Amino acid sequence: MPQLLKDAIRDVPDFPKPGILFKDITPVLSDPTLFQLSIDKMLETVENLEIDKVVAIDARGFLFGPSVALKKNAGFIPVRKQGKLPWKTNSIAYSLEYGENVLEIHQDAITPGDRVMIIDDLLATGGTAAATVTLLKQLGAEVTCVTFLIELDFLNGRQTIDCDNIHSILNY
Amino acid sequence: MPQLLKDAIRDVPDFPKPGILFKDITPVLSDPTLFQLSIDKMLETVENLEIDKVVAIDARGFLFGPSVALKKNAGFIPVRKQGKLPWKTNSIAYSLEYGENVLEIHQDAITPGDRVMIIDDLLATGGTAAATVTLLKQLGAEVTCVTFLIELDFLNGRQTIDCDNIHSILNY
Repeated sequence: MPQLLKDAIRDVPDFPKPGILFKDITPVLSDPTLFQLSIDKMLETVENLEIDKVVAIDARGFLFGPSVALKKNAGFIPVRKQGKLPWKTNSIAYSLEYGENVLEIHQDAITPGDRVMIIDDLLATGGTAAATVTLLKQLGAEVTCVTFLIELDFLNGRQTIDCDNIHSILNY
Repeated sequence: MPQLLKDAIRDVPDFPKPGILFKDITPVLSDPTLFQLSIDKMLETVENLEIDKVVAIDARGFLFGPSVALKKNAGFIPVRKQGKLPWKTNSIAYSLEYGENVLEIHQDAITPGDRVMIIDDLLATGGTAAATVTLLKQLGAEVTCVTFLIELDFLNGRQTIDCDNIHSILNY
């Protein structure tokens, strides 16, 4: 089944910069059968787990997180780039290849003890997901599961994420 | 029912800049009953319409568009800010209060004749939605419906959008 998804994903060389082979997921999104399959596969990763909140990361995580949250009857919490969330936020800076990035979460997004699932489209070096785990733990969340559509195994990103339960639907 | 949604939305003064009263939808997203209600209300706006593709706008439109697309068994198409889509794109520039913004869509996102629903969280001056309609018509789409969670009536944004079928769940 995941092979159907792999067959649809389009490799785009040199995007967003030379030397990067970008995994374009838009052909999955535009096919309702494949898009539903990707959501179902993500749901399987938390099949026997109680989840209070699904957290997804701006912007491509938003393509998957809300559908999973609604199906699990869990709240949805956005983690966003700096300056996008209007209420009181906690923020975290983390290093990118060039410079740094800042992620923010609303301080009232999490009730201490909330069992949280994190969703994003792609696990590369893991910096974004690791920063999100830190933000959530600062607010008292229990990070129950981190699920990606795609994992680039050769970058070993999962080693940077402080969670024992990390899943990817498609591995490269 | 929409009153439940209005009660949950949080007014944040002077965000993102002085004089703007920002409608914070995160309390709707974090409550699965309210989030599902907002999706159901959006679905009602296309209840008797055939929809081939649901288009939503980066980034808050992504919170609603995919769930509506999956429920309608339609493809999902993202319209994104400049430089985010990896494949061949069509782009459009439009004026903001200060400077301009550019939106892009993949050239292969639309098959001529596709019946398209556009979704975004908020209708303010309408510039973003109007630009999205133009992008879609350039690719041969039939824009069947444009649906917003929130409309700020006093800005008359709907007058700028070239579509006869515009809906908002919550009006202010």
